[in-house]
Amino acid sequence: MLSPLTKRLIDALQSLPGIGPKTAQRLAFQLLAANSREKGLALAESLQQAMQHVHACQRCRLYTEETVCALCRNPQRDQALLCVVENPADVLVIEQTASYRGLYYVLQGHLSPLDGLGPQEIGIPPLLARLQQESISELILATNPTMEGKATAHYIASHIDSARITCTRIAHGVPFGGELEYLDGHTLSHAFRSRKLLDEIER
Amino acid sequence: MLSPLTKRLIDALQSLPGIGPKTAQRLAFQLLAANSREKGLALAESLQQAMQHVHACQRCRLYTEETVCALCRNPQRDQALLCVVENPADVLVIEQTASYRGLYYVLQGHLSPLDGLGPQEIGIPPLLARLQQESISELILATNPTMEGKATAHYIASHIDSARITCTRIAHGVPFGGELEYLDGHTLSHAFRSRKLLDEIER
Repeated sequence: MLSPLTKRLIDALQSLPGIGPKTAQRLAFQLLAANSREKGLALAESLQQAMQHVHACQRCRLYTEETVCALCRNPQRDQALLCVVENPADVLVIEQTASYRGLYYVLQGHLSPLDGLGPQEIGIPPLLARLQQESISELILATNPTMEGKATAHYIASHIDSARITCTRIAHGVPFGGELEYLDGHTLSHAFRSRKLLDEIER
Repeated sequence: MLSPLTKRLIDALQSLPGIGPKTAQRLAFQLLAANSREKGLALAESLQQAMQHVHACQRCRLYTEETVCALCRNPQRDQALLCVVENPADVLVIEQTASYRGLYYVLQGHLSPLDGLGPQEIGIPPLLARLQQESISELILATNPTMEGKATAHYIASHIDSARITCTRIAHGVPFGGELEYLDGHTLSHAFRSRKLLDEIER
């Protein structure tokens, strides 16, 4: 009973990650409601624009419609610090903390040989080339604290001239506001092993 | 740190009902990933097509890109039965049961004076005109079992020539597979008041 165009719209919405058949149907009907036509057309337009013009920044692989993104072009950023993350969303959360003023490199994934993701696919050769060319003194490996994230960090660290560049990894431990009781054992045992002298802790 | 086009895409996705800022961001990044470009363009295309060409069927107000929808044009449907529902999604669930072979009329809402939805807005005048012109013998009011749905059903019933057209409402009661223990009191007390003789029940 659905018209071909309605069916096509539902199918296309369903192709979005995390959108099931029921949600796709609900979204389609709400977009087709008389007062949502402009919203739907605006979405179609911005989707098309983004798909056609947004690509990876040549320098950091963050999404941008320019050759080099605004973050890389910002002379205020500390050019000696480079932070490696897995996803563009990671850049956003780090920027929200306003505690980091260096540059980024977005892998767009992690090493995962079973999924066909090798060093080439996650842009490690251009990262190593960049480290050769630019005067970066510290490389912060902020990949996720998962098996794959750790393996990726180790792989990168093992290919770096450690005499010239310091490699660091962001700290892992008990998150502020969390309760020990509900923390997983792995994190807790790591937090114990990585305990610090009270005097060492920044206050 | 987001490029203007990326930001616009996230905003547009966020304008969808039920999509919050985090989900919109996740969807945008996943669509921008290299292997999803075609999916994104296909969605843009089908959105645009649907927004421009899909409209309400002239006869039943279901969404279609033709003047009259496939369901209304189907000569196999019982032309003497008309079922009134609030939403297009209701037609889909009723059709899935395969237990109804008549025609539909989609109000696209319910009477809600506070939201500016009067009889005109939910298409009651054309429904009454249709009842005058066509030889419909039974009008099934399948609006939702809510205050507004009930009020809408009563409004329609009160404007109908009851000598010529039988007005019915779908049955309410305990759903199959449910447990009495978890049922709301309103439904349960209705089910008690509407109890039927065992012999009357279709088996």
